[in-house]
Amino acid sequence: MGLWSLVYEGFEPGEEGLREALCTLGNGYFAARGSAPEAEADTIHYPGTYLAGGYNRLKTEIAGRTIENEDLVNLPNWLPLTFRIDNGKWFKLQNVEILSYRQELDLKRGLLLRTIRFLDEQGRRTNLAERRLVHMGEPHLAALELTIAPEDWSGNIIVRSALDGRVINAGVERYKRLSSKHLEPMETGPIDADAIYLKVQTNQSEIRIAQAARTCVLQDHQTLPVKRTTIQEPGYIGQEFALEVKPGKEVSIEKVVSLFTSRDPGISECGLEAGKAVTWAGHFDSLLEAHARAWEHLWRRFAMEFRRGPSDGENRMGMILNLYIFHLLQTTSVNTMTMGLDVGVPSRGWHGEAYRGHIFWDELFIFPLINLRLPEITKALLMYRYRRLDEARAAARESGFKGAMYPWQSGSNGREESQKLHLNPKSGRWIPDNSRLQRHVNVAIAYNIWQYYQATGDREFISFYGAEMFLEIARFWGSIAAYSHERKRYEILGVIGPDEYHDGYPDAENPGLNNNAYTNIMAAWVLTRAPEIVHLLPEDRRKELHELLDLRQEEMDRWQEISRTMFVPFHGDGIISQFEGYDQLEEFDWEGYRKRYNDIQRLDRILEAEDDTPNRYKASKQADVLMLFYLFSSEELVRLFEQLGYPFEYETIPKNIDYYLHRTSHGSTLSRVVHSWVLARSDRPRSWKLFAEALESDVADIQGGTTPEGIHLGAMAGVADLVQRGYTGIETRGDVLRLNPCLPEELDRLRMEIRYRGHSLDIEITGKTCTVSALRCTEKPIRIGCKDTVIELPEGDTREFTL
Amino acid sequence: MGLWSLVYEGFEPGEEGLREALCTLGNGYFAARGSAPEAEADTIHYPGTYLAGGYNRLKTEIAGRTIENEDLVNLPNWLPLTFRIDNGKWFKLQNVEILSYRQELDLKRGLLLRTIRFLDEQGRRTNLAERRLVHMGEPHLAALELTIAPEDWSGNIIVRSALDGRVINAGVERYKRLSSKHLEPMETGPIDADAIYLKVQTNQSEIRIAQAARTCVLQDHQTLPVKRTTIQEPGYIGQEFALEVKPGKEVSIEKVVSLFTSRDPGISECGLEAGKAVTWAGHFDSLLEAHARAWEHLWRRFAMEFRRGPSDGENRMGMILNLYIFHLLQTTSVNTMTMGLDVGVPSRGWHGEAYRGHIFWDELFIFPLINLRLPEITKALLMYRYRRLDEARAAARESGFKGAMYPWQSGSNGREESQKLHLNPKSGRWIPDNSRLQRHVNVAIAYNIWQYYQATGDREFISFYGAEMFLEIARFWGSIAAYSHERKRYEILGVIGPDEYHDGYPDAENPGLNNNAYTNIMAAWVLTRAPEIVHLLPEDRRKELHELLDLRQEEMDRWQEISRTMFVPFHGDGIISQFEGYDQLEEFDWEGYRKRYNDIQRLDRILEAEDDTPNRYKASKQADVLMLFYLFSSEELVRLFEQLGYPFEYETIPKNIDYYLHRTSHGSTLSRVVHSWVLARSDRPRSWKLFAEALESDVADIQGGTTPEGIHLGAMAGVADLVQRGYTGIETRGDVLRLNPCLPEELDRLRMEIRYRGHSLDIEITGKTCTVSALRCTEKPIRIGCKDTVIELPEGDTREFTL
Repeated sequence: MGLWSLVYEGFEPGEEGLREALCTLGNGYFAARGSAPEAEADTIHYPGTYLAGGYNRLKTEIAGRTIENEDLVNLPNWLPLTFRIDNGKWFKLQNVEILSYRQELDLKRGLLLRTIRFLDEQGRRTNLAERRLVHMGEPHLAALELTIAPEDWSGNIIVRSALDGRVINAGVERYKRLSSKHLEPMETGPIDADAIYLKVQTNQSEIRIAQAARTCVLQDHQTLPVKRTTIQEPGYIGQEFALEVKPGKEVSIEKVVSLFTSRDPGISECGLEAGKAVTWAGHFDSLLEAHARAWEHLWRRFAMEFRRGPSDGENRMGMILNLYIFHLLQTTSVNTMTMGLDVGVPSRGWHGEAYRGHIFWDELFIFPLINLRLPEITKALLMYRYRRLDEARAAARESGFKGAMYPWQSGSNGREESQKLHLNPKSGRWIPDNSRLQRHVNVAIAYNIWQYYQATGDREFISFYGAEMFLEIARFWGSIAAYSHERKRYEILGVIGPDEYHDGYPDAENPGLNNNAYTNIMAAWVLTRAPEIVHLLPEDRRKELHELLDLRQEEMDRWQEISRTMFVPFHGDGIISQFEGYDQLEEFDWEGYRKRYNDIQRLDRILEAEDDTPNRYKASKQADVLMLFYLFSSEELVRLFEQLGYPFEYETIPKNIDYYLHRTSHGSTLSRVVHSWVLARSDRPRSWKLFAEALESDVADIQGGTTPEGIHLGAMAGVADLVQRGYTGIETRGDVLRLNPCLPEELDRLRMEIRYRGHSLDIEITGKTCTVSALRCTEKPIRIGCKDTVIELPEGDTREFTL
Repeated sequence: MGLWSLVYEGFEPGEEGLREALCTLGNGYFAARGSAPEAEADTIHYPGTYLAGGYNRLKTEIAGRTIENEDLVNLPNWLPLTFRIDNGKWFKLQNVEILSYRQELDLKRGLLLRTIRFLDEQGRRTNLAERRLVHMGEPHLAALELTIAPEDWSGNIIVRSALDGRVINAGVERYKRLSSKHLEPMETGPIDADAIYLKVQTNQSEIRIAQAARTCVLQDHQTLPVKRTTIQEPGYIGQEFALEVKPGKEVSIEKVVSLFTSRDPGISECGLEAGKAVTWAGHFDSLLEAHARAWEHLWRRFAMEFRRGPSDGENRMGMILNLYIFHLLQTTSVNTMTMGLDVGVPSRGWHGEAYRGHIFWDELFIFPLINLRLPEITKALLMYRYRRLDEARAAARESGFKGAMYPWQSGSNGREESQKLHLNPKSGRWIPDNSRLQRHVNVAIAYNIWQYYQATGDREFISFYGAEMFLEIARFWGSIAAYSHERKRYEILGVIGPDEYHDGYPDAENPGLNNNAYTNIMAAWVLTRAPEIVHLLPEDRRKELHELLDLRQEEMDRWQEISRTMFVPFHGDGIISQFEGYDQLEEFDWEGYRKRYNDIQRLDRILEAEDDTPNRYKASKQADVLMLFYLFSSEELVRLFEQLGYPFEYETIPKNIDYYLHRTSHGSTLSRVVHSWVLARSDRPRSWKLFAEALESDVADIQGGTTPEGIHLGAMAGVADLVQRGYTGIETRGDVLRLNPCLPEELDRLRMEIRYRGHSLDIEITGKTCTVSALRCTEKPIRIGCKDTVIELPEGDTREFTL
């Protein structure tokens, strides 16, 4: 296993789901297509996953074990490509004896390779080699190639290549009771002798999805003419043809597929475009060449090199980091940006069905990496929010607030998609779900706008879109905050913080907590930044926006007042209370439960099954108070607390980290990332341990079964960002790119290229030096700060800082 | 008639069509919606026009003359709102005696107002007042309000408010033989007691369009409850209700309409969104308030003040200029930009059916005005081209060329939509149409990319999109240009220039001309700029793009060679031949034909009807060679000709202008704009005369009937740009904003605000001074040149230049 490939040899029972998620191919376009949340049904279908798919929906066992689902060559359900020998059965892995099996995900080229050698019932030995890609350069194309080589027999094979629109959503066990069929067949037909097409429609959102497939046979780089028969069933179309094969004469079947939807720009009718695309497309090898080049360009921008000590070995860490960045780039793809698709970042990628493709707050962990690499993507994703500003305004209005209140779970049109009940698989009970009270998603969006601007200096975005969103969010916080005459401070009541274990007070009638510290402080931060955002606008736009939003001085005065007098609960010796009353909760019996249950990551389900609730305990699912130390440098925090009139010393940080780290179950994959981050400077060994655990989270499926339901994109990006910003101390603040490197002892050297305000910077950090070079460009010089030195760095220059 | 309103009092027979076009309301979103060219049928339907409409499809005569079509209150066919008194007939203008009639288009607020006083068959006198808007701030909304005031009677009125999806395209007489029905009814139904909806689908492109209407009745600012009956027919839904009215108690019926299509971002299913939008919308007056504010913001950016001499009077010129800018802002709307709609600029706006909404080269005349006001719109429109780059690549490939060859007429997916035959209404014959050979649309797009960059300095756009398009266009020119060993120069054969009268040599078998001077010189210009565009890219992106396009040094060397040795035909004394062999053509009998036909603007049709052809004569429809003097300052032209190794003196300009002006019929509305422009410095009185004619072109419908088929957006924008850039001499070249004012004698003073590289500049020009002020902003200082002085102008500063 090198730095650039994820290899599985043979089968391990129970591992298929994980392989499926991790080896899923997509290019953002394919993945995001057809991903319209089915608002009525509260479920989502994303055929892109299947099409791009690795090991979808398989419960396979090899060598005497059951294979429940379709055969392995048949995997991407939308794209069956299979064969039978003579008049035998269609090839299925369970009908043959596997002699060898190897699967490789080539990260560098975005290629999935599989080789299978098998012995069939007639005693024939055959080699199969498969290559698949979902094109990163041609967003509408995917291709697969199956090479069949008989070892010791000659004969006929019958090949079937099809498009199947009858697929359903069945990838998440606990959603089985929900509606699973989301596609209606519309039309199937041949395009020409070589190509067929299929058109379906999502049943609530009425998005039409057309696919076309061109299948051809190659031998010795020559196309073999074959006689085809068309098979049509409702929602299904296939072509069959016969081939003669013999040893030493391997034959390749190539299937090039296109996908268009009724929402694509620059199209006439989507079926017509899909047909045209497969007609224009070249053969597998030429598609691969352009595809690999597109990936090469992405890797130039995103790769991070780090060297570990002499005992480095095969560098599994580097491979996993690449794997995670690979998945990030498949989901938040440069293709969705250039296609102008209106998509957000779903927390599980487009890789599985969990959370139904909904958009949560994960951007907060995902954007920092992209902001400093390809901020055009971040901008496109922020536009997803902008286009749903009116829906957020309506949500605020309906709840009696002003401004814009973005939903905890966002879908097609931006309305609240959070479920009101969820199933606890442990108890089999449906439990009320109050997660929509996580209003803090509205600080995440504002924070992201601010960070995007800091990294890019993109005033046009701020001027047209960013400021309007930011100010409407500020307005929401200004209106939800209520003055307490008793405290002489502002409060925010009845919300939930990032820690979802606590959604209310024990035995309280209504859900929600008062004065969640994270929410309150972040709201104060938003209200502090609001006038600064206004100040960035050119004079005329400022006037326009004030008129448009009817934003008056008295409202801005109120914001300023709130930003200085927001209440923050404390208890004990400088411990920030997660929320008001947290200190009244019981301590949790961590040791006892760990003994009894071993894995207590989903403590909420365990306690619910015991008729108990985490609301009674000082027990968190994930970082809540500690999010503050993740989002802000200590300098910024000191300023913020000072402004609020609360004492804050540097010791506050380790004290709080220690306090909450002891009271966390890491029930979210985001948790380890944040905890590793906040410890990076105070406790490097422990930080490294958490980093290593976070790095393994999806590869090892440490939550035991959640990765097959969809990768954890926030954690993946967060881990990469921990290397990018955590260890370099990169901070984009006040028109300066600040560096404050602090490599873990395990790393000798770290190198990467980042973008900052139009400049491409090569950054190399060793234990003793930090070297920054600015590539040639035509932008104005930027300012770089390292430790206490701030310099101006013009294009073409290099500067070395001694640490 | 003030500066801000277009008023018609009473009816003039034959004027209805013109009123219809000029008073059409739209906000870009509404107008562009459903505007998918029907690729199969080669026709287009744009329901937006009807919805927004003024006087669509009316052939009305008043007072004893026939009213062929639906009644006037019923005008926007999608939105019937009419009434009858007691059990009488539905109100129709032809059934009543009109006592007075007044129509006003309020440009400042984007409001159409009509008042009608009539006497009916029963001798009752009634006043009707109507207000309509298509919302500029809420892109999905439109509203109309009908106030009925009985003067001398009391009784019941029955009101019907409906949505009608059965509309057809029948606005252009000569298209009557083409397919006219483009919508299929899908669904109709009630939303709630007050609201109804309609869903239709375009029949080739399958775009779904949903409309919802909420109708209510107001008296003394109170909503009157009414009992409604629903009327449903296929593709039609209406509500009827009865009202009691009496003198002194006027009643207003308010209809708020929403429109969503399946292509809108941020939506679930379009019918659901349409219903939600009318539920959320306020009443007419509150909608108007926000609508007027949106227009106020646009006018702040786009208004131009000019003062004429003391005899100025009512300032009709200023009103027309405002009218034209108004139409420009309705078509290339800030709403289509924020909605992220994938639309281009159709040459007839969205106001009529001529040219079927296709996109030609008119951007060349339209973008300059927008570049210096709201360049985000230009960028969005350039993205229309970028999204069709693959189709342009395919077109080049299919014609045996490299790079990208954009079509002369572009539609939904960017394929060539030019008709192959067209009807000469004069002869009744269908004539071969070779207009697709106007490859020069590919210089227009490249020129537009360059100018956009010059005005904005937007490197991000160039880096991601602009450079790729530009280089692919350069590549096309590099491949269509062929080396002539005889001439030792490059040639471009078999094309057509802007002058469509000449599409081939007389009696030649194949269409096309050789070495059209405009095309050749512009191609050389594109190839000169190509390396400069590359140079703008940051180092890493440059490398990426070279790899992506497989762009090698030898190809760029070839471009450079072509850009220095392109052949340009000349004849006589420094006259640039419109194309090779132009001098061999016969002189045309202008005087004779003017006498015989009076209007010879469409000389092509006249000659074809006489079995002759303009190909035989030195007679042009519009500026062709002279386009060069329109697009380039004399300094730039001198440099270009020098580079090509041709002599060029300043006298060349007036000589060529004079030569071609005498040989032009002004068969295109663009022609006068260009001619006025090129004369602006050498012959100010003649230039002013042409400006005044160009200004009247749509208001007076000087082509006799073409304005009702759709406004001439290129000419409208061109006229405004003549004021903006022609008289100020504004040129954005080499990172400097250059001014070279030259006011016509008829103007005392000119004032405007423009955008340049993030700065808002207030520019005021009198006969003697030119004053430039930069508003507060946070961009880096810009350089301003006036005559021979170049200065740096920081934000907040003012500088006066003496002329």
